[in-house]
Amino acid sequence: MAITKESIIKALSTVQDPDLKKDLVSLNMIKDVSVDGNAIHFTVVLTTPACPLKEMIKTDCINAIHKHVGEDVQVFPNMTSDVTSTRNTAPLLPNVKNIIAIGSGKGGVGKSTVTANLAVSLAQSGAKVGLIDADIFGPSIPTMFNCEHEQPEVKEINGKNTIIPIEQYGIKLISIGFLTPPDNAVVWRGPMASSALKQFISDTDWGELDYLLIDLPPGTSDIHLTLVQTIPVTGSVIVTTPQKVALADAKKAIGMFKQPQINVPILGLVENMAYFTPAELPDNKYFIFGEGGGMKLSEQFDIPFIGQMPLVQSIRESGDSGLPAVMKDDVTADAFKELSQKLARQVAIRNANLAETKKVEMIN
Amino acid sequence: MAITKESIIKALSTVQDPDLKKDLVSLNMIKDVSVDGNAIHFTVVLTTPACPLKEMIKTDCINAIHKHVGEDVQVFPNMTSDVTSTRNTAPLLPNVKNIIAIGSGKGGVGKSTVTANLAVSLAQSGAKVGLIDADIFGPSIPTMFNCEHEQPEVKEINGKNTIIPIEQYGIKLISIGFLTPPDNAVVWRGPMASSALKQFISDTDWGELDYLLIDLPPGTSDIHLTLVQTIPVTGSVIVTTPQKVALADAKKAIGMFKQPQINVPILGLVENMAYFTPAELPDNKYFIFGEGGGMKLSEQFDIPFIGQMPLVQSIRESGDSGLPAVMKDDVTADAFKELSQKLARQVAIRNANLAETKKVEMIN
Ligand SMILES: Nc1ncnc2c1ncn2[C@@H]1O[C@H](COP(=O)(O)OP(=O)(O)OP(=O)(O)O)[C@@H](O)[C@H]1O
Ligand SMILES: Nc1ncnc2c1ncn2[C@@H]1O[C@H](COP(=O)(O)OP(=O)(O)OP(=O)(O)O)[C@@H](O)[C@H]1O
Ligand SMILES: [Mg+2]
Ligand SMILES: [Mg+2]
Repeated sequence: MAITKESIIKALSTVQDPDLKKDLVSLNMIKDVSVDGNAIHFTVVLTTPACPLKEMIKTDCINAIHKHVGEDVQVFPNMTSDVTSTRNTAPLLPNVKNIIAIGSGKGGVGKSTVTANLAVSLAQSGAKVGLIDADIFGPSIPTMFNCEHEQPEVKEINGKNTIIPIEQYGIKLISIGFLTPPDNAVVWRGPMASSALKQFISDTDWGELDYLLIDLPPGTSDIHLTLVQTIPVTGSVIVTTPQKVALADAKKAIGMFKQPQINVPILGLVENMAYFTPAELPDNKYFIFGEGGGMKLSEQFDIPFIGQMPLVQSIRESGDSGLPAVMKDDVTADAFKELSQKLARQVAIRNANLAETKKVEMIN
Repeated sequence: MAITKESIIKALSTVQDPDLKKDLVSLNMIKDVSVDGNAIHFTVVLTTPACPLKEMIKTDCINAIHKHVGEDVQVFPNMTSDVTSTRNTAPLLPNVKNIIAIGSGKGGVGKSTVTANLAVSLAQSGAKVGLIDADIFGPSIPTMFNCEHEQPEVKEINGKNTIIPIEQYGIKLISIGFLTPPDNAVVWRGPMASSALKQFISDTDWGELDYLLIDLPPGTSDIHLTLVQTIPVTGSVIVTTPQKVALADAKKAIGMFKQPQINVPILGLVENMAYFTPAELPDNKYFIFGEGGGMKLSEQFDIPFIGQMPLVQSIRESGDSGLPAVMKDDVTADAFKELSQKLARQVAIRNANLAETKKVEMIN
């Protein structure tokens, strides 16, 4: 049988993307098919460089060609990615493909830690990542990225004063912590804080990004409203710890994102500080903050459960020292990597199935 | 030598209050001296029923009388208390002797837990205690007091609609959690939240209180400003955990209270979640969140270090079950009791040495 582009495409149209539940050809993920004698080359454009199914899809493609085209052909799939977006025609930051807000309701559950590690992990996989520290009163990002003393430049771009984000570990960062002295309290009412956030969104040179992560403060107030009223948010991630008082506040955050006027898709739930295991007792799990609360909440509200992180001293140390835990080479780093891959998948699924989020009109 | 009232008072004027560093007679703490043959009666009015020095002062009084009046007299000191105040002529809530705000900057460090246990412990010692949950977006007090489904009555008092606080464990409580359904997010901008707090202060029937505790939300924004602009706060307590990102935010909270226009005395610092000790390894301390950060901070800012609480699963459980840990009978309860006594002392010292806090004018 002659090897034709058509036969190759037909063969590849039997391969499904397990997340998007359609075949690769319909999904427009196959490019640059070429035949050179016995050798078949083509490119598979995945929806994210952090795709955990990359190897599986690659093998599926090779197997499909062997089955449908010929057993003795040589198959050379070139695995690449182009992060999907629903924001290509957005009026503000159209070159930012996905805006993802990380919230919790409750304070101190690990939003900033999760955000920092997600950002680094996504960047490590090859994505272009930015991070807005939207916690104006308790900015943690400068410490967590070891750049507390950096000061962003301001440049005139197209006649507008524009903040140039700080770059650290390949991630573009902005935080009020770069603009005010660390020991000074920023004692501001909501409108001042909101206008800082608006500047971080509109007056900052984000360039092209695959993912812009927003580290939210606790609560459901000015910053949250200003965010969704300034720029439509692709999706949100809920971080919670397992205890009742944290779950109660997580429900409030979920309730906020689900409000009909706000309507930001919830991409996943992370349970943090799930249990503690002392080095001397590796088989023991101490459920200091309770057990299973995150999983139950995700079931109750039908939100994908994208990860569970134990309470590990090195995670806290990494935060304080400014070298995110995912940059090390251990099980904790692997767990954060898995988390980032699961989130990236949920973004792709969301983009395949839902329209662009709408900007929220003034609700109060 | 004849036993006279004068000789008794002279003897008691050699006894110092170790905190206030003056003698009991000058401090006006001796009342109702009477002599009945060989028996001497008098009342010692301490500055707080939670006074940890009660027994010591009693012994000092007995010894002073034996030394200066006669070895063979019988001494019957009646130890009582009258909580001091600088607020007796305040325009708002003059019958509330002390208003104490518990803040942290950072979220999730244990403000609500510490506040709940302080409240119960002060009430157990005999004080009249009220508690305002000023966390409008993440109210924890209803859960921590097991009264999530209570609904406060509203009564007309002097022609004004007045909220009657919920009473639990002898403490008067108010929280937004009593007024809104638990699963509903309160998505409000600052002014709405501030007006709720104002109602909790001005339109609530607090009656006579020795201590009104205010459980603050994280941050340094609308609620904090509204509080100090609505009612002068006697003093504040800073709760922190030991890690760098928490200390950074605690510094911001300290900075806020110390701002010249705000100027709320800081009564003490509590380090929470200091270390974890598994039951199986009672000699081990795991400093998950770092070591010694609270102590260092208190030295740096010259704030009394009033307590260190370890990370204990039963504290979290007590919070979730609504029975504050101090109500049990164990070392954790004792530690919270000691904390409340140290705070009560600091309130008395503050009242003896400083004038009433001034109401803050609009600063922004
Ligand atoms: N899994 C974990 N194990 C150990 N420490 C952790 C873990 N997750 C977070 N921490 C630590 O707990 C503290 C709180 O985490 P973090 O600051 O990320 O929470 P947050 O939700 O952003 O808090 P806030 O509401 O104040 O913004 C930090 O010191 C962080 O290093
Ligand atoms: N010493 C402790 N040991 C164990 N758990 C604790 C301890 N202190 C507080 N907790 C638990 O930690 C969680 C956070 O505490 P809490 O809600 O009191 O903090 P907070 O500062 O009021 O948080 P927020 O900023 O959200 O208001 C709660 O589940 C509480 O039960
Ligand atoms: Mg944070
Ligand atoms: Mg609280």
